[in-house]
Amino acid sequence: MQEPARGFQQTEYKLRTERAQSLMAALDLAGVLLTTQADVQYFTGFQTLFWQSPTRPWFVFVPATGKPIAIIPEIGAALMRQTWVDDIRTWAAPAPDDDGVSLLTELLMPLARENVQIGVPKGHETALRMPLSDWERLNAALPGLRVADAAPVIQNLRSIKSPAEIAKLSHICAIGSAVFAKVPDFVHEGMGLDACFRKFKQTALSGGADDVPYLVGGAAQGGYADVISPPTSQPLQRGDVLMMDTGCVWDGYYCDFDRNWAIGHADDQARRAYDTLWRATEAGLEAAKPGNTCRDLFRAMSHVIAEMDDSGGDIGRLGHGLGLQLTEQPSHAAFDHTELKENMVLTLEPSLSYGDGLMMVHEENIVLCPDGPRLLSTRAPATLPII
Amino acid sequence: MQEPARGFQQTEYKLRTERAQSLMAALDLAGVLLTTQADVQYFTGFQTLFWQSPTRPWFVFVPATGKPIAIIPEIGAALMRQTWVDDIRTWAAPAPDDDGVSLLTELLMPLARENVQIGVPKGHETALRMPLSDWERLNAALPGLRVADAAPVIQNLRSIKSPAEIAKLSHICAIGSAVFAKVPDFVHEGMGLDACFRKFKQTALSGGADDVPYLVGGAAQGGYADVISPPTSQPLQRGDVLMMDTGCVWDGYYCDFDRNWAIGHADDQARRAYDTLWRATEAGLEAAKPGNTCRDLFRAMSHVIAEMDDSGGDIGRLGHGLGLQLTEQPSHAAFDHTELKENMVLTLEPSLSYGDGLMMVHEENIVLCPDGPRLLSTRAPATLPII
Repeated sequence: MQEPARGFQQTEYKLRTERAQSLMAALDLAGVLLTTQADVQYFTGFQTLFWQSPTRPWFVFVPATGKPIAIIPEIGAALMRQTWVDDIRTWAAPAPDDDGVSLLTELLMPLARENVQIGVPKGHETALRMPLSDWERLNAALPGLRVADAAPVIQNLRSIKSPAEIAKLSHICAIGSAVFAKVPDFVHEGMGLDACFRKFKQTALSGGADDVPYLVGGAAQGGYADVISPPTSQPLQRGDVLMMDTGCVWDGYYCDFDRNWAIGHADDQARRAYDTLWRATEAGLEAAKPGNTCRDLFRAMSHVIAEMDDSGGDIGRLGHGLGLQLTEQPSHAAFDHTELKENMVLTLEPSLSYGDGLMMVHEENIVLCPDGPRLLSTRAPATLPII
Repeated sequence: MQEPARGFQQTEYKLRTERAQSLMAALDLAGVLLTTQADVQYFTGFQTLFWQSPTRPWFVFVPATGKPIAIIPEIGAALMRQTWVDDIRTWAAPAPDDDGVSLLTELLMPLARENVQIGVPKGHETALRMPLSDWERLNAALPGLRVADAAPVIQNLRSIKSPAEIAKLSHICAIGSAVFAKVPDFVHEGMGLDACFRKFKQTALSGGADDVPYLVGGAAQGGYADVISPPTSQPLQRGDVLMMDTGCVWDGYYCDFDRNWAIGHADDQARRAYDTLWRATEAGLEAAKPGNTCRDLFRAMSHVIAEMDDSGGDIGRLGHGLGLQLTEQPSHAAFDHTELKENMVLTLEPSLSYGDGLMMVHEENIVLCPDGPRLLSTRAPATLPII
């Protein structure tokens, strides 16, 4: 499989920043303060697994004009210097008494004095990755500063992917598809679900994934009871429906889709659930056009799901955005009126509940082209495959 | 390798909760609200990779008496019902207009009316994993509620491990040690660093790790430039020092240690750096006794490091706690006066800077016994091994 280039050209970061600044100007924001792995990586290219340690906060400030400014622990300076960011301010973290707060205060004081407004992602699907007490101290030190929600700016920007981002997403989806295609070669009746998961991860790594941070699923007679559990050592039995749902990563970008198989034999109900979800995905593919909304997509899928399940499963939505995170905005849900746009990368994820506490989920990954979707995942077979 | 039992007895969660409640009583806290993966898992046993999706907030409230109360998205209800928690309140998330806020308001209103104080982890090494605007709405809806920092309660509690936790940590450290022992069998001159990483992960999965969420490192002539970068495809060359630092996971518990090797040949400076760090670790092992403080541990190690590097490297600390997270409190740093106690599980992580922008890091994992440390990782060889 031919790999795309790793990283991005500087022009990509410049364009992202300029687009953010244009959205910021429309909302009268004099800057946006970012604290999370995905947001920092999006604007700088700073990529590390070190975020898994909760010890140190990391900050990037996108000013109204010019390049982002990094305020980060000294341990990250060498890596940040490899990015396009010029203004890198560091401190010897951890420093519980002052983990970047005085550096942030110094940066933001001129804006506070002018009594202008900055943005921080505060809304749906966000979290502030710094100690809340430090955030309170920062605000107390900057009494004139007004803080608005920057979530719409950042989420709208990130939801439209560039050609280089789509190439990475397409690559990791192809790797994921190739791994799913091999599952019947290594999964068999009697194998523990944990062993299936282990083998899946090893196959994905061999197939070129950088990592398999996300793999969940289930297996039980005729369906499964939930879709977020870690695997048990319970051996696969004839009549089980096995589902694996993976987020593999390549150069920081995720795939997120699943596949279902019956072990030895599929009962009528499982085959019907599978068929319903397959057709719900078809309806989603049909509705996945620029100009439609997420709500349209949701309705197209839930109309088919309703044949078997009025509640539309209990996942809460029928798909979402995809990129630097396993799930991103928007949501295919009745509440989300976001207009679908060209170059959005999305999952279609219809689910349904049936029988005695059983459920089933299907998922595909797509990119929106002018006339409709292009599948990034290899479409699941139309009938429940049997291993 | 004989695996410990997965999960914990209910008595373990009961004890954790009662200890928290006793610490809460001392601080006059009528409850503690928790929002992060590790804190929720610690009190409930709720374990899932689904936290990687930022879409949904999850809440657990530890009241002054009785079992924790879970306020969670419906998608997690089936899994939470498998834990010891009885009171599980759910909503159909995502719901941007009300992602648990009204359920939290209902729960906390009686406490707000009494004008009592609850705790939320707000201090060093914490973050509130919910939208900041929802937090602000919650506070606005509960004007009488006072919120104090619960970080000390939770961090002190989690820093002392139970025998069952130590068994899990010991197991994953043994798996990590076995993988490191195999590195000379699969790493060779000319191999890309990314290929080394991939092979390391596959070997760890074969060796029984559930996952390898953390693997960082570096390789360059006579040392490496930073310790948090993802690997490049740069082939290993004779004279390189290769370092890999891993956080492998078993049943939710992490190891966190590293190993260094020279490829083909080690220069004098690299051998001297290695020797200095090996002896710094010895000094750390000597000082790692209940009754000493983290600062004592830091000083013991930095005294040796100072032979080559006055700054003590630029990692910011020389080790930390370990458990459900890759890094936990306390920190082996001059600022941390935490008293070392029996059954703390810690890393010793001396580092130094030398030469022209080079650095080296050593790391071991230990558990504190009454008379001193027991190594959980197999001690690194006393001289820089050559592959």
